[in-house]
Amino acid sequence: MSAVKKIAVLTSGGDSQGMNAAVRAVVRSGLYFGLEVFGIQRGYHGLIHDDIFPMDLRSVGDIIQRGGTILQSARCMEFMRAEGQQKAAEILRERGIDGLVVIGGDGSYQGANKLNKLGIRTMGLPGTIDNDIPYTDFTIGFDTAVNVVVDAVNKLRDTMSSHERSSIVEVMGRYCGDIALHAGLASGAETILVPEVTYNMQEVADRMRNNFEKGKRHSILLVAEGVGRGEDIGKLIHELCPDYEPRVTVLGHIQRGGAPTPFDRNLASRLGDFAVRKLIEGESGKACGLVKGELVLTDFDIVVNTKKEFNMEMYELAQRLSQ
Amino acid sequence: MSAVKKIAVLTSGGDSQGMNAAVRAVVRSGLYFGLEVFGIQRGYHGLIHDDIFPMDLRSVGDIIQRGGTILQSARCMEFMRAEGQQKAAEILRERGIDGLVVIGGDGSYQGANKLNKLGIRTMGLPGTIDNDIPYTDFTIGFDTAVNVVVDAVNKLRDTMSSHERSSIVEVMGRYCGDIALHAGLASGAETILVPEVTYNMQEVADRMRNNFEKGKRHSILLVAEGVGRGEDIGKLIHELCPDYEPRVTVLGHIQRGGAPTPFDRNLASRLGDFAVRKLIEGESGKACGLVKGELVLTDFDIVVNTKKEFNMEMYELAQRLSQ
Amino acid sequence: MSAVKKIAVLTSGGDSQGMNAAVRAVVRSGLYFGLEVFGIQRGYHGLIHDDIFPMDLRSVGDIIQRGGTILQSARCMEFMRAEGQQKAAEILRERGIDGLVVIGGDGSYQGANKLNKLGIRTMGLPGTIDNDIPYTDFTIGFDTAVNVVVDAVNKLRDTMSSHERSSIVEVMGRYCGDIALHAGLASGAETILVPEVTYNMQEVADRMRNNFEKGKRHSILLVAEGVGRGEDIGKLIHELCPDYEPRVTVLGHIQRGGAPTPFDRNLASRLGDFAVRKLIEGESGKACGLVKGELVLTDFDIVVNTKKEFNMEMYELAQRLSQ
Amino acid sequence: MSAVKKIAVLTSGGDSQGMNAAVRAVVRSGLYFGLEVFGIQRGYHGLIHDDIFPMDLRSVGDIIQRGGTILQSARCMEFMRAEGQQKAAEILRERGIDGLVVIGGDGSYQGANKLNKLGIRTMGLPGTIDNDIPYTDFTIGFDTAVNVVVDAVNKLRDTMSSHERSSIVEVMGRYCGDIALHAGLASGAETILVPEVTYNMQEVADRMRNNFEKGKRHSILLVAEGVGRGEDIGKLIHELCPDYEPRVTVLGHIQRGGAPTPFDRNLASRLGDFAVRKLIEGESGKACGLVKGELVLTDFDIVVNTKKEFNMEMYELAQRLSQ
Repeated sequence: MSAVKKIAVLTSGGDSQGMNAAVRAVVRSGLYFGLEVFGIQRGYHGLIHDDIFPMDLRSVGDIIQRGGTILQSARCMEFMRAEGQQKAAEILRERGIDGLVVIGGDGSYQGANKLNKLGIRTMGLPGTIDNDIPYTDFTIGFDTAVNVVVDAVNKLRDTMSSHERSSIVEVMGRYCGDIALHAGLASGAETILVPEVTYNMQEVADRMRNNFEKGKRHSILLVAEGVGRGEDIGKLIHELCPDYEPRVTVLGHIQRGGAPTPFDRNLASRLGDFAVRKLIEGESGKACGLVKGELVLTDFDIVVNTKKEFNMEMYELAQRLSQ
Repeated sequence: MSAVKKIAVLTSGGDSQGMNAAVRAVVRSGLYFGLEVFGIQRGYHGLIHDDIFPMDLRSVGDIIQRGGTILQSARCMEFMRAEGQQKAAEILRERGIDGLVVIGGDGSYQGANKLNKLGIRTMGLPGTIDNDIPYTDFTIGFDTAVNVVVDAVNKLRDTMSSHERSSIVEVMGRYCGDIALHAGLASGAETILVPEVTYNMQEVADRMRNNFEKGKRHSILLVAEGVGRGEDIGKLIHELCPDYEPRVTVLGHIQRGGAPTPFDRNLASRLGDFAVRKLIEGESGKACGLVKGELVLTDFDIVVNTKKEFNMEMYELAQRLSQ
Repeated sequence: MSAVKKIAVLTSGGDSQGMNAAVRAVVRSGLYFGLEVFGIQRGYHGLIHDDIFPMDLRSVGDIIQRGGTILQSARCMEFMRAEGQQKAAEILRERGIDGLVVIGGDGSYQGANKLNKLGIRTMGLPGTIDNDIPYTDFTIGFDTAVNVVVDAVNKLRDTMSSHERSSIVEVMGRYCGDIALHAGLASGAETILVPEVTYNMQEVADRMRNNFEKGKRHSILLVAEGVGRGEDIGKLIHELCPDYEPRVTVLGHIQRGGAPTPFDRNLASRLGDFAVRKLIEGESGKACGLVKGELVLTDFDIVVNTKKEFNMEMYELAQRLSQ
Repeated sequence: MSAVKKIAVLTSGGDSQGMNAAVRAVVRSGLYFGLEVFGIQRGYHGLIHDDIFPMDLRSVGDIIQRGGTILQSARCMEFMRAEGQQKAAEILRERGIDGLVVIGGDGSYQGANKLNKLGIRTMGLPGTIDNDIPYTDFTIGFDTAVNVVVDAVNKLRDTMSSHERSSIVEVMGRYCGDIALHAGLASGAETILVPEVTYNMQEVADRMRNNFEKGKRHSILLVAEGVGRGEDIGKLIHELCPDYEPRVTVLGHIQRGGAPTPFDRNLASRLGDFAVRKLIEGESGKACGLVKGELVLTDFDIVVNTKKEFNMEMYELAQRLSQ
């Protein structure tokens, strides 16, 4: 295989804070190593429609601190089909682009894997707030999302404690409870419900009531959306203890916004640069991750077929400290 | 009437950011002028149940920057009835408390008005995020709530613009659209719906669609809860333009939390001190407000029977600038 | 005089948060009323060098929340001289620009006044963090600067109280102590030194020591730069009480940065739109201000020859509450 | 050795954000495992003066989000001497306290090491913003300090870019440049000076000038205090390029304040709990750290005699991306 000379970068799936920092790192690192770098607008949709443009140092100026993604993102049904994937590969070949960096989540990796099998050298960067991607300890955007949640929980505590009320906060996390877990531990949430751990609703209700009887002026239950809707859980608790009526807050898309934290910016910068260096070294079909402090590559085939392990130790710690 | 020697302070109704700064000002100003100052826990409920305690400089140390209220708040059905009000007046008389500062909204003022008519000298401070109290340009907490909303809208813009989507954000304001208006103008919201101004849903939907056709990458509609639920408005818009599906975010109680802004702290400090000075001067049955930069007193009878005027000029400005 | 058809906007002097919101308002309001609108880069320097370009709705998209000024600012010695002023007037006339909005402080107003006298219709907007401009209760940027200072003081309190130390914080304000006053009241500073009020250093030192002897764990002195350098004041205090060594923090230019608060954005939006409407009505040579809640015009000749009045009442309140 | 039944916790040295979260974890984890837990006020000074008090769940309520340390910190010359150390050990023995958790930096570890050698079981937690402690990837407070710095640099960029100026920002880090490195990478600083890497001032000056000539509107140089004072570096640069006058900002103690980030709270919670569990298991004389994602113990003797390794890879990355 010949040396990489032209690379492109796209963002795909739900956006996350730090995607811009990752795009910046890919562009600047690529230019540093003498490559031509292209941006693709609106993910795989833009790729199939040849919405591709050259990027230079200025294209990524003043974006490291911005939420969202200047490359935008979009769903693309056409790319789901083999035909669409072949079209994408052809467009890249016609333009002489011999390396592609895809920033996104699980679905985005599957797309990059397909392109790899069609002969396009691809690298994946974990861009999603959910932290649901295996073979990386943190995804780009996760730390910022946890900050947003903890900030919101702090605000709720002010008013909950003034009125001696309890609150249920529904946060993102369809398959992975990490946002609930990390934000729950950091904000001292009394109860954390995640998809990875089964729970007994009667025990949850008893626990909330006990806290109050012990004199706790307020109580927060954090629930990952994968467990169920906050509103439904509130109703269940109310049924089990009729004199008890928790308020429900659904944080929704604000979890995806805001300036990325330094942690996310640095994670994104390191991973973006790593992806470029590995493409230059001839690697392909791999997801980039930070595992125990080290930058590592893992085959897409492995990543997309593995479920992220849940940190049971941290979960138990949260329970221990919120007694 | 004899000179005031002992005063008490309570917070009532929904809490708001800056209530603590107001409590601090009442306590410190009272002590400065040689009064004894008492705190009442949980609003009128605590008053009726004699949950009253002396406060000194230390009681209000390190609270100026805290959301919520250290005096807590609570609903009190008993105080709604004449019997409860008489009981409250008696308790104050028995304790020799001859001045009461009530921090809260419209309902709290009505209670203070009743006590005034029972011979207790009372002063009201406008503590509510809604800015729905007349005879003051700003209520304590309003500026902070607007900050919380604008911060959330900024976060939503990041992700909305990445995905070229539209968003509906439901904010507080049952009778008064000021949070929606001020936050909408400050965040450049494309559409603002408030209870004070009628609207035509077809026009709203057309406007949102037009914005997109003109190339605007995202669009925010801010709706005060008094207009209707964000979700219902989203459905209506979707019915009117079936290919158009705005996301709905309900900000809820986080609007009531967070450290008060300097603006709210200073407003609270000025009003709290003013209330004490006016009690000393022999005033009673009055609401304290900041009107066009001046501290003013207005009879409770007038305040509770007046509807806050809406700033139509600012509303039109918001429309002009979000074209 | 004929009707205004083309207007231009520039920012001048030290930048302040909210200048972008003001530029946006001028541009959007101008376009709304059917005018052509131009931007001038780098203040009067850009004007003299004809660095002028047309602006449309897109030119001011996504800037309302940004600190700094997209039009930039610069010192311009050339414009200080009559010759430079005439050149500027000629350039505007050649381009058919018949109205100019200048956003800046006192010096910027003087320049706008000169142009007015050369027959160019000009309007001034108070863009400076110092709040040192008379005939407006607030300047654009002041509220944000106060927020930045209060945030920094909060951070210092954490560490000062852990170590039982005192802190001196030097803030901006050469001739006007409003930043020190408003931030000091809002953060509960024990001492506030402003250029408008004389003080006795021995009393200041005694007060700081007394606080400690009374058991206060930390003490903050806020000093406006117009009073003197924080370091010098620290040394004086140390000489007067040798066992006493306050830490000094100079906040510097961070006070000028950060996203403008909603308050500043709305003030800027209202004033920017007001300036455009008044130019259309034929006014010229006037400063726009918000006085007691009302938008007002005042002759430049009056504004530049008046000293801002100091709010002595608020200063005494701060003293009363920090006892 | 008998089983641990009573433990105490103190904070020592410069305070850092997250110390309160660590104290909370030690107390709650200790109580969870059936121990009695005591707090020691003002570090080793309070220990020697027997300023020791029992702590329960309530003692650490509502502190997880607070900067500073409720246990305060202080220098203690007396404890530097063997006599003082023996007195401290005796006081602990008299009270039956058989385990001590010390939260602080290098100097605090040396004290804990001495007590360990006098037969007191001790554990150390890395509480310092500098990240200068080996055998842990992160110290408690470091992430928050980096956030504070990046926030300040963002504010400076606004105003620097408006005026096309350059800025030098002096940050903490006497022996360890990690704050400068992580904050510099995250904020896209053009130049980063750390004690671990030698530099050529002429090259630095050339680089800053080149950036300007290439059209960069602003430039930030981050310097760790261990390299030299920001002001001196500014003067050197000015001498080397006389037409070039960078502004200098010294962030100072605000870097130590503010609410700890979720990252720091969770790090503190995990380490605090770990220390307690290890004391129960009979360990002593060890520093707790998080190394490559794992909680580990390292002998104080090793920790205090090792210099933290500098992340050269990340430094080179920062250079690559800020070209």
